[in-house]
Amino acid sequence: MNRGLLLVVSGPSGAGKGTICKALMQKKSDIHLSVSATTRSPRPGEVDGESYYFISEETFRSMIESGGFIEWACFCQNYYGTPREKVEEQLAAGHDVILEIEVQGAMQVRSKFPEAVFVFVMPPSLDELRNRLSGRGTEQPEVVEERLKTALWEFSNIEKYNYIVLNDDVDKAVDRFIHIIEAEKQRTERNGALIATVKERID
Amino acid sequence: MNRGLLLVVSGPSGAGKGTICKALMQKKSDIHLSVSATTRSPRPGEVDGESYYFISEETFRSMIESGGFIEWACFCQNYYGTPREKVEEQLAAGHDVILEIEVQGAMQVRSKFPEAVFVFVMPPSLDELRNRLSGRGTEQPEVVEERLKTALWEFSNIEKYNYIVLNDDVDKAVDRFIHIIEAEKQRTERNGALIATVKERID
Repeated sequence: MNRGLLLVVSGPSGAGKGTICKALMQKKSDIHLSVSATTRSPRPGEVDGESYYFISEETFRSMIESGGFIEWACFCQNYYGTPREKVEEQLAAGHDVILEIEVQGAMQVRSKFPEAVFVFVMPPSLDELRNRLSGRGTEQPEVVEERLKTALWEFSNIEKYNYIVLNDDVDKAVDRFIHIIEAEKQRTERNGALIATVKERID
Repeated sequence: MNRGLLLVVSGPSGAGKGTICKALMQKKSDIHLSVSATTRSPRPGEVDGESYYFISEETFRSMIESGGFIEWACFCQNYYGTPREKVEEQLAAGHDVILEIEVQGAMQVRSKFPEAVFVFVMPPSLDELRNRLSGRGTEQPEVVEERLKTALWEFSNIEKYNYIVLNDDVDKAVDRFIHIIEAEKQRTERNGALIATVKERID
């Protein structure tokens, strides 16, 4: 059995990563979305273990020290991180795993999992991005501006990603993800077992 | 407009490359299959300009000298080659082009078109391959054995290909090709124009 695919999904806040990932999991039930841990407080409607694992700063720091995170970062004075154990388990069991994380976290994953696939979700336009960011209605204008600046920084790292998925339409974007996942599984470097079997038969 | 994708398809004789490529073109009308030139005689039913361009050895050699081939090789005392001009035209017009060629030709393409995508078509098993090779019924046993030896040599080069497509079922194999083509179009390095536009907007 082949090891699962680790798919790292980034892109500016408001590009629609979350919506795509949810729709993708409904279409492909064998994909697992990694749940991040955070020290920030739950927002209304957020459920512990589903939206995030809400943990204390003390627990978070102790996990950092014990190597319990694949990647972690601090935004707006809150910690966010990807717990290592479940991801490793899923991959070993042959399941694909999605990490929906920020650019700086993604770069940490790349150094630890060079075989991971990095996908940058692109909003159709920067105007559209601004509309989407503002459109949530739950953020202050200065938060929107701050997020836009962050988005610009993220765009400047786009060439570190393997793929760019345009999110002009959720269904189309999901299909694009499926193409990427199915294609990556056929990459020669992921089929060492198949090649070894053939070579054994040849010798 | 993005340049078309150059897809190089190899794999042992009898693996089903030709069947897959034909089925793929029926499903995706925007793909063009490059027609090779050869100095061998037409077999019954083969049409000049469709199966191959049947040309004289003199013409072939003069095209080699003028750089008219992307790749060429000599098998069983006959020359086979991929004329450069049409392929370049199609790619420049944004059309995807398939070259269905032998391993040694594919390696020539790689040095000239490093951005090409290399796909190795794998028969479900070596036994199945032998069955398919023999099953054509049009070949002598020694030709079958010779082809099998060539197939083994081809397998030894499999790691030079980007993707391995298993041909256990033609429809599935065609879908696998479509995943590869659609995924490759989203690769970051093929979307320089998109990135440039975004960066321009940012600055």
